This record gives sequence, C-alpha cells and structure tokens, in this order.
Amino acid sequence: MGDPLDALRPLMASHNPPLYALIVPSEDYHQSEYVSSRDKRREFVSGFSGSAGVALITMTDARVWTDGRYFVQANQELSERWKLMRIGEDLSLENWISDNLPDDATIGIDPWCVSVDTAQRWENIFSRKQQKLVQLSVNLVDEVWKSRPLAEVNPVIVHPIEFAGRSVSDKLKDLREKLAKVKAHGIIFTTLDEVAWLYNVRGTDVDYCPVIHSFAIVTLDSAFFYVDKKKVSDEVYSHMEENRIEVRDYGAVSSDVGLLASGQLSFASKQNGTSERENKNHLIWVDPGTCCYTLYANLKPDQVYLQQSPLALEKALKNPVELDGLRKCHIRDGAAVVQYLVWLDKQMQDNYGAPGYFLEPEGTLKRKHAETVKLTEVTVSDKLEGFRASKEHFKGLSFPTISSVGPNAAICHYNPEPETCLELDVDKIYLFDSGAQYQDGTTDITRTVHFGKPSQHEKACYTAVLKGHIALDTAKFPSGTSGNALDVLARLPLWKYGLDYRHGTGHGVGSYLNVHEGPHMISFKPQARNVPLQVSMTVTDEPGYYEDGNFGIRLENVLIVKEGDTKFNFGDKGYMSFEHITWAPYQKKLMDLSVMASDEIEWVNTYHSKCKELLAPYLDESEIAWLEKATEPIRVV
Amino acid sequence: MGDPLDALRPLMASHNPPLYALIVPSEDYHQSEYVSSRDKRREFVSGFSGSAGVALITMTDARVWTDGRYFVQANQELSERWKLMRIGEDLSLENWISDNLPDDATIGIDPWCVSVDTAQRWENIFSRKQQKLVQLSVNLVDEVWKSRPLAEVNPVIVHPIEFAGRSVSDKLKDLREKLAKVKAHGIIFTTLDEVAWLYNVRGTDVDYCPVIHSFAIVTLDSAFFYVDKKKVSDEVYSHMEENRIEVRDYGAVSSDVGLLASGQLSFASKQNGTSERENKNHLIWVDPGTCCYTLYANLKPDQVYLQQSPLALEKALKNPVELDGLRKCHIRDGAAVVQYLVWLDKQMQDNYGAPGYFLEPEGTLKRKHAETVKLTEVTVSDKLEGFRASKEHFKGLSFPTISSVGPNAAICHYNPEPETCLELDVDKIYLFDSGAQYQDGTTDITRTVHFGKPSQHEKACYTAVLKGHIALDTAKFPSGTSGNALDVLARLPLWKYGLDYRHGTGHGVGSYLNVHEGPHMISFKPQARNVPLQVSMTVTDEPGYYEDGNFGIRLENVLIVKEGDTKFNFGDKGYMSFEHITWAPYQKKLMDLSVMASDEIEWVNTYHSKCKELLAPYLDESEIAWLEKATEPIRVV
Repeated sequence: MGDPLDALRPLMASHNPPLYALIVPSEDYHQSEYVSSRDKRREFVSGFSGSAGVALITMTDARVWTDGRYFVQANQELSERWKLMRIGEDLSLENWISDNLPDDATIGIDPWCVSVDTAQRWENIFSRKQQKLVQLSVNLVDEVWKSRPLAEVNPVIVHPIEFAGRSVSDKLKDLREKLAKVKAHGIIFTTLDEVAWLYNVRGTDVDYCPVIHSFAIVTLDSAFFYVDKKKVSDEVYSHMEENRIEVRDYGAVSSDVGLLASGQLSFASKQNGTSERENKNHLIWVDPGTCCYTLYANLKPDQVYLQQSPLALEKALKNPVELDGLRKCHIRDGAAVVQYLVWLDKQMQDNYGAPGYFLEPEGTLKRKHAETVKLTEVTVSDKLEGFRASKEHFKGLSFPTISSVGPNAAICHYNPEPETCLELDVDKIYLFDSGAQYQDGTTDITRTVHFGKPSQHEKACYTAVLKGHIALDTAKFPSGTSGNALDVLARLPLWKYGLDYRHGTGHGVGSYLNVHEGPHMISFKPQARNVPLQVSMTVTDEPGYYEDGNFGIRLENVLIVKEGDTKFNFGDKGYMSFEHITWAPYQKKLMDLSVMASDEIEWVNTYHSKCKELLAPYLDESEIAWLEKATEPIRVV
Repeated sequence: MGDPLDALRPLMASHNPPLYALIVPSEDYHQSEYVSSRDKRREFVSGFSGSAGVALITMTDARVWTDGRYFVQANQELSERWKLMRIGEDLSLENWISDNLPDDATIGIDPWCVSVDTAQRWENIFSRKQQKLVQLSVNLVDEVWKSRPLAEVNPVIVHPIEFAGRSVSDKLKDLREKLAKVKAHGIIFTTLDEVAWLYNVRGTDVDYCPVIHSFAIVTLDSAFFYVDKKKVSDEVYSHMEENRIEVRDYGAVSSDVGLLASGQLSFASKQNGTSERENKNHLIWVDPGTCCYTLYANLKPDQVYLQQSPLALEKALKNPVELDGLRKCHIRDGAAVVQYLVWLDKQMQDNYGAPGYFLEPEGTLKRKHAETVKLTEVTVSDKLEGFRASKEHFKGLSFPTISSVGPNAAICHYNPEPETCLELDVDKIYLFDSGAQYQDGTTDITRTVHFGKPSQHEKACYTAVLKGHIALDTAKFPSGTSGNALDVLARLPLWKYGLDYRHGTGHGVGSYLNVHEGPHMISFKPQARNVPLQVSMTVTDEPGYYEDGNFGIRLENVLIVKEGDTKFNFGDKGYMSFEHITWAPYQKKLMDLSVMASDEIEWVNTYHSKCKELLAPYLDESEIAWLEKATEPIRVV
C-alpha cells in the first residue's frame, strides 16, 4: 500500500474547487475521543495513533498537532514526511494556516467530523486572509482508504434500571422541562454517551466505550433514536416503545433535522394520542462543542439555542444507584489489581531474580534470567485483563491498558504493541494505567512500581507525585470552586523541585460509559474554570512526572465529590471534599519517608488499612498474605 | 447641612435631558483608588467612606454597591435612605439598572470619573432596553457640595535617581520603542502613579499616595506633563526640560488630546531641533481600564489602540535600585513595628493588668484598670505612626492605619475614628494593618496579637491563617503561573475547617508609590488569571479570617518574586519563588502547635531568627530583649 498522502493530493487537486489543504481530525461523526477502527482516519493518513490530534495536508507539507501527552509517541510514529506541531508550544493549527497558507486558500473538511465551535473558530481566523473553509460532500480519506474496515453491526443492549438508577421516562421528563425553560422546541444529541445515557442503552460499537453509533432528537412531545436498525432487537424495540421513542435509520438524522427546523418532525404514526400542539417554542438546542457542523448548517442561526447540552452536567451528577455501583466495581477492580501485583511480583522474582515488591537490596543485584519465560509489557497486561475478566459484571476494558517499562512510562498514553514492546526489567520502573467497564461502573487506576532497587531520584519523584496525589485527595473547598483552582494542589510538591507534568490532573469518569467524561475537570486549562465541582461528580486524581527516555511515574485514583463535613460553614456556601473509591496499595519502597509529613504517612496508613479490609474478601490466602505485607502501617520514627 | 440626596434630585429633574438616575463612582479623574478629599464625591453623597464602591441615585431610591471587604462598614455608615448592594451576591449595578429602571431611562455620569471600559460595559447593557448613558458637562455632586475642599497646591518634587533607579530618558526611550512596535504615534496617561513613575516625580496631592494631580501625553517625538503650574518649581522645570518634557496646564489635556487626534500636537517652541518627521504611525494608545471616557470620546475609534498601558507591567517590574530600597525600608519599618509592639505590650500590662504579649495565664484573669490612661484604636495607631516617622526617609503613611480591636478587626478595611473607636481590651484580639511611604519604598504589613488569653477557637483560626500565609510564601512555581493559580494555597488550611475570607490574597506594592499596584494580583478573581507573576514583582501575602461581631485575623508580608533556584527545570520553563521582605514577629501564643507541621514551625523559627538579626541594629537594649524573647525558637517536641 502506498502512502495515503500520495493518493490524497491528486484528489485534493482535482476537487471542485481545488483544495489547497485538507484537515483530518481524529474525531468521528459524534466528536468521540475513542473511535471505531473505521473512523481512525487521522491515524490512517499519518500513522500517529494517539487518541487526540489533528492532521493538516497541503500539496507540499503534512503536519500533526497533538498535546503534551503524545509528544514522544507522535515523534516515534510519524514518518519523516510529517512534522509534529506541539499544542501549547507551537502555533495553533488555525493560526499556522492563517500565517503560512496564501490568501484565498481553500481548506477542506468533512463537516460531519468537525464541531460547530471548531468550524466557526477556523472560519473566523481564515477569513482574516479570505481563506475559505470548504465543506466536502465526501470524505476524501475514505475515498483513498481501500482497506477501511466495514461498519460493525453490534446489538443494542438495554441498560437495566438496577444499574442505571433512573428511568428513561424520568430523564426525558427532566429534559423536557429544561427545554421548556429556555423556550426550545427540541434538542439534537450527537454525542454517543449522551444518547446511551438518556435512553438507558449500551453497545459495543467502539472499543472501550459501551456506546452505539447513533443520534437522538428529543422534542417537547416526541423522541427519536437514529441507529442502524439491524442492531435493534425486539427487546430494545419494546424498551423504546415503552418510553415513546421512535427508532429511525441512522442516516435519517440529517433530513430529520431539516424537518425539525421547519416544525414538521413528528412520530410516523401519531401513537399514544400525541396532540398536534401549537408550537410556541421555536428554538432548537444545539451543543456547539459536540454537534457536527453539517447538522447545524441545516438550521437558521436565529432558531438555534447554542449551549452546552444539559445532559453533560446531568450525566456527571451520579445518582445514588450509580454511586453505589461505582463504589462496588472499584473494589472488585482493586482486587484484580492486587492479584496482578502478587502474580507479577512472583514472576519477577522467579524469572528475573528480582528482589521483588518488598525488598530493596543494599548491594549490587545478582540477576538470573530464566530464558524460558519472557515477560513483556503486552503479555503482563493480558494477565491483568484476565484478572479483571474474572470479576462479576465485567464487560471489557475502559481504555487500552498502558503497561510501560522504564522509558516507555515517560510516554503518558503509551500503548504497547506485541512486536515492539519492552521486556519487564528488574532495574526499571513499571507503570500501569488501566481500567475496565463493569455493568455497575467504569474504573481507571494507575500505580507505579519497582521490583528492584529504585534510585534516590526515582524515590524523590515518586514521593513528590504521591504528595500531590494526597494533597488533592484531602482538599476541602467551598461550593463554587472549579477544578481549575484545585489543580495547583497536585503540582505544588513537584514544583518545589522544578518538576511538573504536561497533562491535567483529573477527568470525570462515566457510569458504565466513557472513561473520560465532562463537563468538569481538574486542570490548568481555561475550560476547567467554568464548571464548579458538585457533590456526586466523579473525578480522577492523577498527578505524574515523566522524564523523557528514562522513566515515568503516575498515581491515579477515582474520587467522588461529597459534602465536606467541615466544622464551620463560612459564608453559608457549603463546603465539599472527596471520597476515594479506588483501592490498591502504593509501594512503600518507592517512598522517601524523610520528606513526608506525618499526616501524609497517616493518610497512607489509613488508606492501606481500608484496602486490606475491602479487598480481602476477593482474594485467596496467599494474596491476602501479600496484601497484608503491602499494607502494613508505616511506622513514623 | 441637608442630605445631598435632597439637593441632587431637583438638579437631576431639571437637567436637560432629565435624568432618571445618577451614578456617583468613588474614582476621581484619574481612576484613583485613594482620592483627595475634594474628590470623595461618593462618600459625600452617601456617607459610606470605604475606598471602593459606587452610588446610584434615582428619584426614589439610593444604593451603594461595594465589595466584601466593606459589607460591615457600609452597613454601619449608610443611613436608612440608602441600601447596600453586595458585589458578588446581589445584582450588579448595571444589571440592576437594566432590570429595575424603565425602558428609555436616562442615566447620568461625569465622563471624567468613569473609565472607557466601564462606560462601554454600562452602555452595552443599558442598550438592551434603550436606556441611555448621559455624559454630563458638569458634575452634579460638585454643584450641591457647598463645602467642597479647595484644590490643593502642593509642590511637585523630583524623585532622585538614587531611589528611582532608572532615568526618565531611559524610560521614555523604552516607551517610544513600545509605541513604534504597535504603530502608535502617541499615548495618553491618566493614571497618577504612571505619570509619577514615568517622569520620576512625586507629590502630596493625595493622602497616602505620593502622586500629583496630572496627566501625560507622550508621542514618538514629544512629551507633555499636564499639571497646575503653580506646583512646578524651577528645579522641576529644569528636570522636565532636561528630559524634553513640556509642562502644560492641567486643563489643557482635553484640547491637546484633540490636537493629538488630528496630528497637530507638538512642542510650543520646536526646541532641541525636533524635526517635523512624517508620521506613519497614526494610532493613539489608550488604556481602556484607566483612561476617562471623556478623553477617549475625543478620538475616532479606528485611530485608538485600546490596550493596557505598557507602564502597568513596566512599573511592576522593580529595578535593582528599587528592590534594594524596598528591602531596606522594610527593615526600618519592621523595627518601628517591633518598637510599637514593645510599647503596646508594656501599656497593656501597666494600664490594663494584661498578662502581656508573652504570658498566657491558666486561670481567670485578674484585671486592674488604671483609669488615667485610656488606650484606643486611634491613640495607639498614632503612636505607631510616631515610631515610623522617626525612621530615615519617612514621608507619611501609605494608607489609613487599620487599628482594630475585637469585632472591629472583622471589618477588613476598618478605619477607626477618634469619637467612635474602641478601647484596647485584654480579652480581645488586636489587628493592625499599616504601612508607610519612605523615599526608598512603600511598606504594608499586618500582624494580629492578643495580650490576654486567646480562646482555643481564636488560636485555631490564627494558626490556619498562618499556615496559608506560609504555604504561599514557600511556594515555587513555573514561569507563566498567575496569581489566580496560587490563591488557593493561602485558603486551603482555612477551607479545611469550612472557613474562608472574602478578599484577594495579594496585591502589588509600589516603590514610593501607591500601596496597591497592578497589573498582577493573587486572587480568585478572573482578572488575576491573565498576568503571570514575574521575577522582580512585589506582591503581598495576606490571608485572613473574619468572624462578624467577634474578631478578625490577618497576617501580611510583602514578597518579591525571585528566581526559584529549583534542583530541576522541567520543560525549561524557569521556576520562581518568593523572598519575604517584611520583618516583624508572629505571636507564638496564638499558634496551635499541635496542628502545625514541622516544616511550618521551622519556617517560623528561621523567619524569627532573621527578624532578630535584621531589626536589632535599629532597637534599644530593652527592645532587643523583647524581640529576643518574641523570636526564641519554638522547640518541636
């Protein structure tokens, strides 16, 4: 197969009008972070496989913009025909185009793959030099992608109320009240997890995300589910009918948005006596951050209510059933992580002569290597998946396991491949960041371990990361505080040494849904400023430190925002704090106790004692013995 | 004298057009925070004397908007004809007008007293309902203010280079380079401290701020100083002439801005062979946050470059001479504070039978009160001023001393009056926040003390404030970090108990200039986001806690931003930290050592030992003995 660049450029040249440049984003029609293999267009053209990034192709130039998590990986994966542009350091895509492409240049996009916000931002900047964004009617990448995987036909599954916690009718009622309040007649949902959450359905169309390729439109008196009907079983049809949702073809969404715009969208058969109510509300609610540009383009600007989807926040505020499920699945998940550590510890000792999880030899290390068993980043992570798969309600992983040795651990979102991955190493740090989808919740945990003798520097860095992790975990804060304000807490112990990490500190986690969820986050990014943390949100606590070519450290728990239970309540604001629901030990060998405060040590001891108590019921005798040792209280001298 | 409201309303009614409402801001023609007594129009009409706040008068209603620092004070000072509006809690002024005044309402302002930004924001919001902002040609408050103080005629003084550190010609050269870079022909300065800084002059027109009522205009080849010429001595004329600055009448600025707009502003006599250069740069730089609306209204919108004044940042970055002066004057100032504490401690013991600064009696307190000497908030603060006045280079106070006992300490910007102020009290906390103007720098310090037996709750609160104060002081942070990101560090120990304070954590401090200086700050406010802290900036570190009707605590030092001297330099960003330059002990009796970490105690010990070393040369034997006791290391058990 030739380089897609060579196939694309003639198509760009022969397009009417000819395209000076083509933008290939990483998102699908639903602005998903994780996409199915047939939607990995940016990876296909550029070779860069990270989950975020956008490619720009001109006749003579090809560039990929990506963020700090992927700088190292992109450099490795991009061929010499591509140039890496570092978001936050280099010119942005749109400014680069404005500065470097000629006046009147035409820039092509597939308007299904770009959000309203993004398209409008680009158009604004391009207009400075009369450059023009061209909405393509066919995706040029699909044209040249001969081996593009076929569309999957995976069944839609009803997500039972004992896990969902709220009925579809309740969610629809609530949503319609919100529509009425802003005088909107209807709303378009293009985001896969919002459709799944609203209709209480799940699927397997996208690896790691239990969602279905689908759209939804809800009006004050009707509701539609756009999906390949081959995926819809009788059970799902009944579920939809019960909730007065009409199932329509995936492809019908475009023309239905047109009907919605002209006030003509209604149920095929006016079942259930829906009255033809006079429509005083003309607005149509569109989320500009997620809705694809092509659907928006069907509407007149003055009939659109452009605002973040109300489901973004609604979905983030977990109901009691979801919270209960999240707590429970995190205990089972923690047990799998401990079983994995016990197994890995033994393997490292048996096959590599490692001192192991607990011992830190004083002298030089004598190693024996039993050539028969070779542990690699991939083989061990398969084992980890196995432990998880044995747990109740397991449905799959929640993202590609990051299983990384030494220098690979410095690649924040490293994804090991069987052919190229590293072997485990007694002398190197091992970092694993992984999670699973259980029917009762989604998990995401990172631990960093060493089976030999860590250097003083590695210990210092691990301890600084741990201190930041604890500082965020123990914070109490008044109502109205955003994740932007708290981000610094996790960084401060690293900054003390002039260290830092290039990613945010925390993201929301779904309830048997996407592992990355908004609208809140804990981050230095401006977006993190506008959404205050609220009771019953989930958020991760994952500071790290990454030394290029050497090692990486990250520690991650999932937290639930809860009421703060403070002694006072100044300003009657209400104070909040966090409950951690992730359970797996931190490696004491990697801690430099001399720089830990007594309440930090106490925090570790309390956490460890709770770990032992919660996980023991899921472990066998030898695993319990290992865990007891791993969680033995640190004695402060 | 009648209520000004009764005199103003007929004037509003008879105005052409009739005014539905009148806005009376607290600022003068220069958008000053502290204004001269004849410019205290908002205080005159409303009685509220705080440094920030805006009054709104309609035919039937009168309201004052002010911020959290002043809620308690405003409630005390406003008569029942006025209503307090709490900024951050109630509707904003402009939204209140939009929601409550009728369509087409006319709202009068004096366009000299309102900045471009503010006037435009109001106009935008008022236009929603066709409400109209009317620029008055006379100030109606001045019309009714029969006893308005006369304009002061205080001499302009040259600020010598040994204190200023940079010559006027150097500052002008730098400024003109900045003008040329943005293709501006000239710039208008209306802010008093910017004029004083640029031309290296000082004055006494405004209490506490060593500035002169003046404007400046600088073009690529000329410079003007608008001031009452009666204030200008021969020496100052020479200084101006040397630097090719023409002195013009204060009132000429308005017509000169007109000449500037039409490209006709030039020196009266083309001295020094200024060539009539062809003018390719047509823009005029105006700072929308500070320039009065009336001067801006003389310019065509497309010839204005609206941007923060370049002097805002330039002035904040102290030069080495200024830094040296600031360090030195803070030592003398700290000595005055210690002398004051020694004196006050003795007075409290002698006159009130207090256990004193050091002792904390176990049982109930026996008090004797020598009726002959009565210590009040005002009399003791006069004593403090006396100690300062005896120090080299003293020029006056830098703001009205906050000297406050018990409940008055809960009023953040309390200003004691001889008639109403409280007497010192053995059983109550005493907070003093004060500072001075020295020729080599400006100071600002707050300490909180107790001469009797503090309650456990007061100790807990003091300790939480101290912990926040230390946390900010010891922070290291990468280049690019704003004061917004660091604000949380000072609050976190308070949040732990559900406590907080309603003001920001830190402001810039001038160099023998205003005690409050921008453009940076340490605050939760959005404005604090956009200005990264930079090496050689000054900033205060002043967390607090205020319990209405009970007590208040604040601790304040001035910090200088310096290079971080971190072990590593991740991302090659450069890391920064703080140097504290304020020296006076913290009261150990108020600390709850059981909740202080060992490095916090170590910080106090190190700070105290340095205090003793630096201040001793300025103290007599008995003062040194007191200081030695006050700074004796805390022994960690």
